[in-house]
Amino acid sequence: MASDETMSDGVQFFEGVEKLLEIWFTTSDCNGKASDLRKIPRSKLESLLKIVRCEIISFVKNEQIDAYVLSESSMFVSKSRFILKTCGTTTPLLCLQPLLLLAEQYAGFTEVEDLFYSRKSYKRPDLQVSPHQHFDQEVALLDSLFPDGVAYCLGAVNRDCWYLYTLNPLPQRHPQIPGLSTTDADQTLEILMTDLDPDVMAIFTKVECLNGTEATKKAGIDKIIPNMTIDDFLFEPCGYSMNGVSKNGYYMTIHITPEPDFSYVSFETNVPVSSYKEIIGRVLDTFLPGKFTVTVFNNQLSPTKDTSKELLCLNQFGNRWDRRDIQQISFKNYDLMYAFYTKFPS
Amino acid sequence: MASDETMSDGVQFFEGVEKLLEIWFTTSDCNGKASDLRKIPRSKLESLLKIVRCEIISFVKNEQIDAYVLSESSMFVSKSRFILKTCGTTTPLLCLQPLLLLAEQYAGFTEVEDLFYSRKSYKRPDLQVSPHQHFDQEVALLDSLFPDGVAYCLGAVNRDCWYLYTLNPLPQRHPQIPGLSTTDADQTLEILMTDLDPDVMAIFTKVECLNGTEATKKAGIDKIIPNMTIDDFLFEPCGYSMNGVSKNGYYMTIHITPEPDFSYVSFETNVPVSSYKEIIGRVLDTFLPGKFTVTVFNNQLSPTKDTSKELLCLNQFGNRWDRRDIQQISFKNYDLMYAFYTKFPS
Repeated sequence: MASDETMSDGVQFFEGVEKLLEIWFTTSDCNGKASDLRKIPRSKLESLLKIVRCEIISFVKNEQIDAYVLSESSMFVSKSRFILKTCGTTTPLLCLQPLLLLAEQYAGFTEVEDLFYSRKSYKRPDLQVSPHQHFDQEVALLDSLFPDGVAYCLGAVNRDCWYLYTLNPLPQRHPQIPGLSTTDADQTLEILMTDLDPDVMAIFTKVECLNGTEATKKAGIDKIIPNMTIDDFLFEPCGYSMNGVSKNGYYMTIHITPEPDFSYVSFETNVPVSSYKEIIGRVLDTFLPGKFTVTVFNNQLSPTKDTSKELLCLNQFGNRWDRRDIQQISFKNYDLMYAFYTKFPS
Repeated sequence: MASDETMSDGVQFFEGVEKLLEIWFTTSDCNGKASDLRKIPRSKLESLLKIVRCEIISFVKNEQIDAYVLSESSMFVSKSRFILKTCGTTTPLLCLQPLLLLAEQYAGFTEVEDLFYSRKSYKRPDLQVSPHQHFDQEVALLDSLFPDGVAYCLGAVNRDCWYLYTLNPLPQRHPQIPGLSTTDADQTLEILMTDLDPDVMAIFTKVECLNGTEATKKAGIDKIIPNMTIDDFLFEPCGYSMNGVSKNGYYMTIHITPEPDFSYVSFETNVPVSSYKEIIGRVLDTFLPGKFTVTVFNNQLSPTKDTSKELLCLNQFGNRWDRRDIQQISFKNYDLMYAFYTKFPS
């Protein structure tokens, strides 16, 4: 999404596919209400991102959430939730141990309540850096830190697929701590798109737009979820990132690698709606992908839990995309739906 | 299940986990009604099984199905469906090409309509023979034969999991051929159990029983699905296999590796009932496993399609087993549910 990387074979390539790390912290301390990840000093976050091989390039915040645009994608920091989404050849899992230390030292969090590490299969896994070259490597690192970790592969392992690592402790070993985040509704929609419409992708180049704001308007990104405070960035010579934040800590984030040979767009949000079907429709109409995956996480309190049922009934999306795969997993606190679509005729 | 294998480190071990291959054949020939896999001569099936590294040790049949007990598990041959289930270090995928040739040459089938290759994760993958040492190897072989093949891993890839390879052609490239098997109800229940009750396992040794019939009665296997014609076999010094067949081509099959260090029992049936919950309960009460996976395949016409809904609502099975995983996949013709349970407290 940011700058191109030149490969040893002389071909320009950039891996748009992000590694997405989301951690929910908690504490057994009775003073836990004062715990807040936003107490971690900015300089410490910057050092953390050096380990990941990226840096902060823009920042907005509101009362609930700090939103950073990075040289490779985004970071969101709330009271008890940390989200790091990084593309290219970044190494987010290498910052995990230092992050746990910072969360304890500065934010007062002694425990990881839940963790989600996920990514799509890369276009060029051979270009990744350890421990991100293979899911088995990533799982081995995570297993060394989390005894209750479980790893999944959704979708066809010999085609496009999507990897997830999360925690699945036995209920009796993990008593509910009153007053903390698991009692709130929570949901996340992610749409990962490839083979996108070249005319749409051209918007996200310095040839066609001066800056992020112009690209956001021209593509209609500001209309996907209205009333968001938008922080957008157009890279030189091409590539685009945006974070949007609204009240109650809701966010959206879009990252675009526009080059025709390896075009990639990711969309993510946690806004609560009765179904994500309409938002998915607006995202698809905006970017016109050749292929895309949809993942929806929701806990039992979330209003979005009908999305899976709706998508399960549809063999096609919007008359233009055939469903090739649909899978559901039920975890202790979350239900997850994964679906994969290709443009008709594919 | 058959005889023990002695390992290079001097420890006795036998891999009970089976590789399960199920193929549905069809033909575009207008004389397709005469096509029948049971026209393949026995001598040809015996040669085929040599490639797989096992042999026929017993046989029953009725009008709809030929059921073979093998030195390593079972084989079922119907008009258009071939099932080969083999444990130990057998190599069933190596017989795939010769089988396709036999199906054309003797049975009149020119096309594979559907294919399912599945297995649980092995206890000792290091002892397997190529191409069965790693799922990636198996997928590579299958991909070389089937352009529409899709491979899945269900359950946690870093714990107990279950692999599946099947075909997922685009609808328009695979028109329905009238009068053939996809228009019938079809379903399969499989329960794969490990860490079984030692007292139950002792039944399946020559110390405690004289022959298969005595073991079948003593364990109560004949009561799991009544009114089956049973062909059972007790191995020397231990291990047990049984096939049961009934009208309309329904079957059940059980294979038991009783040794405490690597105990394993598999149960499989295609009988149509409104829910598999009761049969699952009887199987668990019979064998008392420490852990087990349940998989249910059903097509849209199957009466068993409520099983998934019932199991989805239950965090436990029979008050004794905690559910650790539940996943669902929807294919073009089949829905699949996978669930994994461990004994409480695990």
